[in-house]
Amino acid sequence: MLKVIKIGGNIVDNPEKLDRFLTDFAHLSGPKILVHGGGKVATAISKALGIETQMIEGRRVTDAETLKVVTMVYAGIVNKTIVNKLNAAGCKAVGLSGADGEFILSERRSPVPIDYGFVGDPRRVNTRLAELLLGNGYTVVAAPITCDGKGTLLNTNADTVAQTIAVAMAQSAVREKVELVFCFEKRGVLRDVEDENSIIPMIDRSSFAQLREKGIVADGMLPKLENAFKAIDSGVSNVVICSAEQITTEGYGGTTIRD
Amino acid sequence: MLKVIKIGGNIVDNPEKLDRFLTDFAHLSGPKILVHGGGKVATAISKALGIETQMIEGRRVTDAETLKVVTMVYAGIVNKTIVNKLNAAGCKAVGLSGADGEFILSERRSPVPIDYGFVGDPRRVNTRLAELLLGNGYTVVAAPITCDGKGTLLNTNADTVAQTIAVAMAQSAVREKVELVFCFEKRGVLRDVEDENSIIPMIDRSSFAQLREKGIVADGMLPKLENAFKAIDSGVSNVVICSAEQITTEGYGGTTIRD
Repeated sequence: MLKVIKIGGNIVDNPEKLDRFLTDFAHLSGPKILVHGGGKVATAISKALGIETQMIEGRRVTDAETLKVVTMVYAGIVNKTIVNKLNAAGCKAVGLSGADGEFILSERRSPVPIDYGFVGDPRRVNTRLAELLLGNGYTVVAAPITCDGKGTLLNTNADTVAQTIAVAMAQSAVREKVELVFCFEKRGVLRDVEDENSIIPMIDRSSFAQLREKGIVADGMLPKLENAFKAIDSGVSNVVICSAEQITTEGYGGTTIRD
Repeated sequence: MLKVIKIGGNIVDNPEKLDRFLTDFAHLSGPKILVHGGGKVATAISKALGIETQMIEGRRVTDAETLKVVTMVYAGIVNKTIVNKLNAAGCKAVGLSGADGEFILSERRSPVPIDYGFVGDPRRVNTRLAELLLGNGYTVVAAPITCDGKGTLLNTNADTVAQTIAVAMAQSAVREKVELVFCFEKRGVLRDVEDENSIIPMIDRSSFAQLREKGIVADGMLPKLENAFKAIDSGVSNVVICSAEQITTEGYGGTTIRD
């Protein structure tokens, strides 16, 4: 089983939490791909460089200057810091941006209706490159910078990158099973958003329909679960939604989404 | 024959020259590794971030903040820009920092007599990782950031990185021949520094002794040639000193240094 695990800003921006997570991640058995964001670092560097960060509907508008910053931050400092810590923890890791070996080829998003600038929607994954590294014992650490195949780098949402990689690996001839894990602030899908202990351990299609109908799953969680089922429709075995703290060598908690 | 080609700031800092070089480089036949610096970009970003660049004897002092900047610039924007342009030009390329798969393991330089901060002297190259990529048709693009194997990134001179990679590849069981090419501002070793056309096409040990005795080779060129002979002593077939403009698919000019 290949694990594709995505961590976001709440871990990347916190050195202690990141160290703790990477120590646990380093000791997870089997082939694995770690996808990271790095949002707050990019915002801080942009600010220091006098580049204004513009967000529309929670997404970063990537002009030419911002593209340079996110490339420096995601593919540079964040990716290499993670890779370096994993290697020091005994987990042989190689970092890839979507430009390396055209790992993730994207299409630049249309400027209509909203012009997000240099933002790309993934179209193709070089699964052979990932398999080459995984097959030789390397863990892949993927930065959410992609490319258009014509010489332009593009900024891509890290959740989308993780999902795209997981689906492509599941569809490649080599892999039997792929598990996709999204780490976020909460410990899973909660029955009661006020109660951190009300984690729903398993959601399948029929329970999802019920949770949705009763309004237990709503707002930001709804697209997360819809995407999880899309991944499953496309061949991913199961999707886990949990917090990074729950990833341990003894397995992880959170909510498992299955067919 | 494996080619290890190093380009410096005069190319990296000039988008037109870089584009022209990469188009030619993309079409060079055979396995190849490109090593790049990126000095002026790092200095500019440091300045914009309010970090003072301190140089001692032409070498950058790398404090913790400067280490972040050079990691962002070398392993981030410069490396990914080059990789992306090569892929677009039809040359499948993957970028590696010295931290990726512990490609280049360094020892942090002693703070005595001069404290250069987070600067490393290479000790070991993961030639297997390079061979894995080269053997599968990828060109390797190496950024001069190395690691100490204990979780600390280090800044290493790009000429040193190129020489270290070339020697390690020459000494690995896989390679028969390795050629090391240093691109710099001049078109080769000049008989008369004022005359760009006075290139000495070939230097061997006996002609080097003569050139040195007569004072034709002196100053900055002396350590370059001494290092070239060290590389040859360590198994590199020949070393070329030329300008990036001389690298064409029809071969390259400049000065060839041989045993």
